[in-house]
Amino acid sequence: MQNINRNELSNMAPRYRAHVINSLSGFKSANLIGTRNNLGVNNLAIFSSVFHLGASPALVGFITRPHSVERHTLENIQQTKHFTINQINENFWRAAHQTSASYGADECEFKQTGLTPEIIEGVDAPFVKESQLKYSLTLKEIVPIELNGTLLVIGEITHIMCPKAAIKDDGYIDIESLNTVMVSGLDSYHTSKRLSRLSYAKPEQLLTKLSLDGEAEQLFT
Amino acid sequence: MQNINRNELSNMAPRYRAHVINSLSGFKSANLIGTRNNLGVNNLAIFSSVFHLGASPALVGFITRPHSVERHTLENIQQTKHFTINQINENFWRAAHQTSASYGADECEFKQTGLTPEIIEGVDAPFVKESQLKYSLTLKEIVPIELNGTLLVIGEITHIMCPKAAIKDDGYIDIESLNTVMVSGLDSYHTSKRLSRLSYAKPEQLLTKLSLDGEAEQLFT
Repeated sequence: MQNINRNELSNMAPRYRAHVINSLSGFKSANLIGTRNNLGVNNLAIFSSVFHLGASPALVGFITRPHSVERHTLENIQQTKHFTINQINENFWRAAHQTSASYGADECEFKQTGLTPEIIEGVDAPFVKESQLKYSLTLKEIVPIELNGTLLVIGEITHIMCPKAAIKDDGYIDIESLNTVMVSGLDSYHTSKRLSRLSYAKPEQLLTKLSLDGEAEQLFT
Repeated sequence: MQNINRNELSNMAPRYRAHVINSLSGFKSANLIGTRNNLGVNNLAIFSSVFHLGASPALVGFITRPHSVERHTLENIQQTKHFTINQINENFWRAAHQTSASYGADECEFKQTGLTPEIIEGVDAPFVKESQLKYSLTLKEIVPIELNGTLLVIGEITHIMCPKAAIKDDGYIDIESLNTVMVSGLDSYHTSKRLSRLSYAKPEQLLTKLSLDGEAEQLFT
């Protein structure tokens, strides 16, 4: 085991340190956020900080920096109040990574990367046609994190698109069957292999394996 | 493709809805958070909402509800200002899930699940011995999310423990080699399979595959 203390952390070269710290939070979801500015220019940016905030109301959040490459995402959301989140899958993970290049505000990442915008009525932001699980949100709040100047952007889900077969009997969505990928560190992409679904944990009771549809299957031996 | 609108979302049974919404954010990191109360009772709880907030200072955040099963985690952090985050791996994912059972404040999840507390000097919270990548944090801020009454707890990293071989030349930590698992939905656990590391994206430049150590390897064909 290597022990790294606060001093050693502070003395790391910035890029090395960024790789280390970004590896600590574990596997991260890989999503493209779609937005559009007031002039109608579509924007697409990759984010690994999308997370669940609550089911009722249905809230999802992500972290952004005010002056980063992805600032167009923030500016567009402030203009239109709308955005889409599109799970990245094994068919377009490299095009998704390419959206992190520093394109100008008038350059559309869809055109630059070959991904296809998909528009539905009532949503003022593009979906990614190639994504198998995607949803639109309306901006609810932007919470400033004063410790480091980042922002937590919170949206409420308004519309979900997902293949019917992936939605199981109890509402669980089999995102592995959609070939959804994840990120580790800053730049490593991975697919998944299911160990199992597990029963709701209770004190003094053994866990059972659940089927994909959420049915109790068997005890572990 | 199944389309689900806001009305249909509202009308879902609460548990079904929870499964759907929890599946939307993609694969989530699986971590055990270790804390200790003023009486010296250790606590361990599983969280799927740990995320990277910044590398300098090194900040990590997670979401908790004030009155959930995991409230002991929050109360303990408020008491001692310390906590540990321990990546869950394939060797103890079921024991980790079992920590979500509703144990009393005087019951220690380590004893209930067979996991082993590990103490180091200067950290007033237990690590999980079985975890291969773990770190301690001091509380920096608790940000209330007023939209749904959740809290964003932010800590600064003070000490990291990780096998030396997993830390690559440029600081990337190969968490796949540590058998770190991830969660989808509320209860499905997965291991990972690497597609590749990718080069830093620039406009008008093709992405290259990177070696584990971050060396440019080859163009994709």
